[in-house]
Amino acid sequence: MADLLVVGSVALDTVETPFGSVKEVLGGSATYFSYSASFFTRVRLVASVGDDFPPEHARLLRDRGVDVAGLDVARGGRTFRWVGAYGYDLNEAKTLDTQLNVLAAFRPRLDERLARTPYLFLANIDPALQLEVLRQMRARPRLIALDTMNFWIQGQRDALLAVLREVDVVTINDAEARQLANEPNLVRAARAIAAMGPATVVVKRGEYGALLFSDGAFFVVPAYPLESVFDPTGAGDTFAGGFMGHLAAQDRVDGPTMRRAMVYGSVMASFAVEDFSLNRLTRLDEAEIAARYTAFHDLTRLEP
Amino acid sequence: MADLLVVGSVALDTVETPFGSVKEVLGGSATYFSYSASFFTRVRLVASVGDDFPPEHARLLRDRGVDVAGLDVARGGRTFRWVGAYGYDLNEAKTLDTQLNVLAAFRPRLDERLARTPYLFLANIDPALQLEVLRQMRARPRLIALDTMNFWIQGQRDALLAVLREVDVVTINDAEARQLANEPNLVRAARAIAAMGPATVVVKRGEYGALLFSDGAFFVVPAYPLESVFDPTGAGDTFAGGFMGHLAAQDRVDGPTMRRAMVYGSVMASFAVEDFSLNRLTRLDEAEIAARYTAFHDLTRLEP
Repeated sequence: MADLLVVGSVALDTVETPFGSVKEVLGGSATYFSYSASFFTRVRLVASVGDDFPPEHARLLRDRGVDVAGLDVARGGRTFRWVGAYGYDLNEAKTLDTQLNVLAAFRPRLDERLARTPYLFLANIDPALQLEVLRQMRARPRLIALDTMNFWIQGQRDALLAVLREVDVVTINDAEARQLANEPNLVRAARAIAAMGPATVVVKRGEYGALLFSDGAFFVVPAYPLESVFDPTGAGDTFAGGFMGHLAAQDRVDGPTMRRAMVYGSVMASFAVEDFSLNRLTRLDEAEIAARYTAFHDLTRLEP
Repeated sequence: MADLLVVGSVALDTVETPFGSVKEVLGGSATYFSYSASFFTRVRLVASVGDDFPPEHARLLRDRGVDVAGLDVARGGRTFRWVGAYGYDLNEAKTLDTQLNVLAAFRPRLDERLARTPYLFLANIDPALQLEVLRQMRARPRLIALDTMNFWIQGQRDALLAVLREVDVVTINDAEARQLANEPNLVRAARAIAAMGPATVVVKRGEYGALLFSDGAFFVVPAYPLESVFDPTGAGDTFAGGFMGHLAAQDRVDGPTMRRAMVYGSVMASFAVEDFSLNRLTRLDEAEIAARYTAFHDLTRLEP
């Protein structure tokens, strides 16, 4: 079992879906990622919050064994806020408001210990900051994965391309993959992104599952057929947490381990969307994870 | 190997996609279905065309061994025409014109031999006609599958529900499944449709593959990751042809055979969309089918 570092955001989310709404609940890419990964391996988190950040949220992460020594609390600062809404098509979030607050001045600082973490996930933040994190690593991690979004693809393309050249895995949703590669066909888009640097491309497709492109071959995992999807916020980061968590836990990055990691990612995401915020994950146990992994296997298994 | 009967349409299609266009080419649900199924088993076709129907089209089907004795040529009639267009989102066809012609007066007539075919596919026609076909069967087929569309779900709901009660399998696309069940969640929609009669529900999801709901369990096949999708016309019927063709060829309808049939359906559809009309299928051989079946297996196989 190897340690896993995530650098990203911790947020207070206000979310409305056709099934209900919540106000200023725990969210953020690093939060979902670390909580999800904590079911698999030891996780270290680097992020910034304001001193308005409710202490019970940090406790929730600590209770799962997440190392929050790298959670910077900015005195007098306000925590990052995101306000979003979903219609019946839960694949697409509509952002109603973003208050960057402390995130605007966020400069990740890694001490000696954090800078030697063997597995690294650069969650969705400014690619210039992702590059700063890479520059601080004292030893090249065994695996570096990166997540990004349309905002950076459009506004920070050069910085994004620079950091992409140095990572092993990119996780990206399908519309963003097409945008980054400037190519409507997803297969060709995945190939084009791999040619930008990352040997492995993970395309997240919401309710249609996820696609792995690695070593010239594709692997596809469907989403778990759920009777009720409640709130898709954080599904992508929860997926990444399960994916990277399994790789770090096994301390292997070969093809078969990557495939199983894709399924663990999908398992974790399938739980996350069953309730608001991290609510479902806080009620989750390892037996449920194992059972749903088997259910995924049954869902796609061709031979009995 | 058991015989397979399809009752449906034979058409002349005019299609425009971002990649090109064709005029009055061979199309129709029964055409795509029978051509695709002919790679697996003996197929009988019942449909109607006008005397403007080019003889080389019937020859194409005969050359594949399709029994076209049930292809009625209406003297002085004109063949059914469909004009459609696709944008870059190839999942959705825009119908520009429909000329029913001989299809408006189509009354399928089954002779004694056809009426005893053990596998039956009721392609997408008026559910009242689908019911007429069922009434003519002299022996209950071992498996009856039915395809339908939004037009009948909206306009002929009662007739559709009547015929659904008598079939074993329904193939339907995802939007239509939601419409038929009046339920936005696809999992609950599939369960609701199964409760209407068909023990097996096959949901076609275009570029996202297909979903099988049978005996209370789900099975998911992704679409094959293609570098170029040219024209999706007929993909659903080609899928159904591979699916039913495999079941009839094996003369089995158990769970594992159904799963393999889902993959054969996906294999055939993945070829069909690579060119206009049946063009790619006419260049297809059994070795390519076997190779792509293996490729599908590799695409979803979790354990090496």
